[in-house]
This record gives sequence, structure tokens and C-alpha cells, in this order.
Amino acid sequence: MTIAARLTELGIALPTPAKPVANYVPYVITGNLVVVSGQIPLKDGKIAFTGKLGDQCTAESGIEAAKLCFINVLAQLQDACGGDLGRVRRVVRLGGFIACTAEFTAHAQVMNGASDLAVAVLGDAGRHARSTIGVPSLPMDASVEVEGMFEIA
Amino acid sequence: MTIAARLTELGIALPTPAKPVANYVPYVITGNLVVVSGQIPLKDGKIAFTGKLGDQCTAESGIEAAKLCFINVLAQLQDACGGDLGRVRRVVRLGGFIACTAEFTAHAQVMNGASDLAVAVLGDAGRHARSTIGVPSLPMDASVEVEGMFEIA
Amino acid sequence: MTIAARLTELGIALPTPAKPVANYVPYVITGNLVVVSGQIPLKDGKIAFTGKLGDQCTAESGIEAAKLCFINVLAQLQDACGGDLGRVRRVVRLGGFIACTAEFTAHAQVMNGASDLAVAVLGDAGRHARSTIGVPSLPMDASVEVEGMFEIA
Repeated sequence: MTIAARLTELGIALPTPAKPVANYVPYVITGNLVVVSGQIPLKDGKIAFTGKLGDQCTAESGIEAAKLCFINVLAQLQDACGGDLGRVRRVVRLGGFIACTAEFTAHAQVMNGASDLAVAVLGDAGRHARSTIGVPSLPMDASVEVEGMFEIA
Repeated sequence: MTIAARLTELGIALPTPAKPVANYVPYVITGNLVVVSGQIPLKDGKIAFTGKLGDQCTAESGIEAAKLCFINVLAQLQDACGGDLGRVRRVVRLGGFIACTAEFTAHAQVMNGASDLAVAVLGDAGRHARSTIGVPSLPMDASVEVEGMFEIA
Repeated sequence: MTIAARLTELGIALPTPAKPVANYVPYVITGNLVVVSGQIPLKDGKIAFTGKLGDQCTAESGIEAAKLCFINVLAQLQDACGGDLGRVRRVVRLGGFIACTAEFTAHAQVMNGASDLAVAVLGDAGRHARSTIGVPSLPMDASVEVEGMFEIA
């Protein structure tokens, strides 16, 4: 099954990748690596998940937020690949930043929202190294932020 | 205009890069990538910006802190390039860590202090992928820390 | 002295690297780089150091936690090298995440637990770039998390 077919089956339409809004860009290609900037859970230009895990943001919402962050990462990656996600050889690393309280301990479960989607979309090439940490706050009060490094052909 | 001329025009004199103070080093070169250790806003060996954004540290001070962190990154990068910043092909990624309260939301504006300077000094090669997150505290109560990955010729 | 001999001299027996527990993996190899997932201070499958620096976790425990995290990183790296740590050319970067209070300032000293061990085990190849930050909380209430990037032959 092609990646496009998998996305359709998962009911995911990749958004138009957000344009650069400052002096940084959504991704940089160096050699055969693509480094994608940290993505927050924006949907149609609006932040969809705010607040902290362990407080105003439920675990379920956190998982959805991580999933949406990864969809935004994927949209940037597709752009980096000239539209063809079939060029992705490997998700090398995902970094997951979970806005949460000092008492929160379920960071890994939240980040699985992104990791599970990576494998659902990209198969074995989607299995990645990962670091997940808590943070007190994120830009625009986002609940989750996900960054990525990818190897492409 | 050369990078040295741009730095002069911006009124920036790169400091002598700080020496290793522990069993880590300010940068490592692997292939054509330079990975620069997280830099805090040190000036003349002293920490110049302390306290949290959203509390003791104003947005203006935070932006200056991010700028100073990037100047320190640049000093290390220049050393990695044997003194010639003209060898920098691309700022691949900057990581920005903003010491702040749980209520703070303007992380991106603070980090622009580093990002804007990258482009002012390096032009198009200065446009980079970026991840910016909040943190509860940083070494030596620094307000900001910036790390970088670079491609060099 | 071989790396195996150094480990023995240091009284360190590398654990069996933990198996993947989710859709992420402990490391990914891309080119001659190995990216190791963030490791927490697990010992015999149990978390050995919990709580925050500056509160329930002492500086001494934090240093031991960082050391244990790096031992777990090293176990994954050895697996990535097909069992032969002699293939490690360089520790490129370590990322250190210190669970702590907003008032904590000694992040660097805690992370030295990992950095010092890197050099004790790998010699000059162990000298690395490093970023150390505070975080409000980590998966499973871990006190420290360490991730790494390595160049191998």
C-alpha cells in the first residue's frame, strides 16, 4: 500500500504546510537528512490543544495533540520531499515536548500519539529513536510540540 | 559583504570562545556537521541575564539574552571553522530553551533574538529549522540557552 | 586498554539493552551516526532515581542517576555497534534533562555524572558537545534523562 493510500485509510489529509513566519524555516535539508522544526498542534491556522497535561489538558487530548503535531511534521516532510513521502527512508528521531505539571508521569503515553501514527503511516521506516520530556509551557500555550529528523532518498 | 563586515556593522565583536570547563567540549565536528553545545548568556565570563520570562526577566531582556546566546554559539562555530565563518553553508537547526513560568506563551518572540541575528549575520545560510520550548530553570539561573547544528564546507 | 577493560575497571557491567516497548526503538543508525533514544535511570527494569533535584532528589543522587542513564545509553550503543564499542569514533552530543525545581541551578554538576563517565569509558572519543536543561517532570518521575548522538566506524 502506498503512503498516500495509508493516509487516506487513516482518514488523514495532510494540511498545506505552514509558511515560515519568522527568520526560521519549517525544515532544513542537509545531506540526506531533513530536520523539521518543532510543530505545535495547529489546525487550520488555529491552536487546537492548549493547557497542561495533569491539569487542564486530559491524557486523551494530549494524545490527539501529539498526533496533530506529527501530522504537521509530516506535511513539512512531504514538502521537503517534493511531495513524495515515498522518499522517506527512515524516521531517525522524534523529540516530544509535553507541557505538564511537575507531578505528571505519563509523558510516554501522550507521545505515543505521534509515534504510533509514524508507524501507521510509514511502516517499518516509521520506527524511530525518541526523547520525551515535560516542559512548563510551550509557544502559544500548546499542550504538545514535536520535532523530527528524517533520512530521505 | 563579508560576514566579518556584517558583524562589524551590527556592532558585534565575537568573544574568545569559552574553554571547555568539564568533560564536555563546546563543539564537535562530525562529517560536515558542527554540533555546538548549549550556550547560556555569558558576557566576559559572567552570566548577564538571569531569572524567568513571565516573572523577573522581561521580554526585552529575554530577546537580548537569546541574542547573546547566539553570539556565543557563533564564537564557537567560528572556532570550529578555523576562524572563517565564510565556511558556514547553513544553520541547520537552533534549539531554544526559555526559562519561564507555566503561564508564559511568548517563547517564539524571545527566541527571535537568536533567529533574527542568525539571518542578519549569515544571510540566507542563516535560515534554520528551530525548536523552542519553555523550561523551569537552566544552569546558573540563565534566562535562555541556545544550541545549534551547522553544515560547513 | 580496551573499552571492555575500562568498563571492568570502573566496575560497570552494561545491562542487556532494554527492548522496544512501543513504536519507537532504542536507537536508529543513519549513515555513520547512531541516535540513541532518551534513557531514564532504569536498573533491572525498575526506575532507580525519582523526584526532582532541588527537592526530593539530592545532588548526589542526581549525579548517580545521570551516570545510570549514560550506562543505559552505552548499552544501546553497544548493541548498535554489534557488540563492539571499539567502533565508536566519537560521542557527538549528549542531551541532559534534569527534573528539578524552578530554583535549581546546578544542572551542569548533575549532568557531569554522564559526561565524566563518557570520558572515563571512551577516552578522548568520549568528549562531546552537550546541552543540559531543567524540566518540570520526566516519564515515570525519573530524576534525569540522557539522550545521545554518536559517530561510529
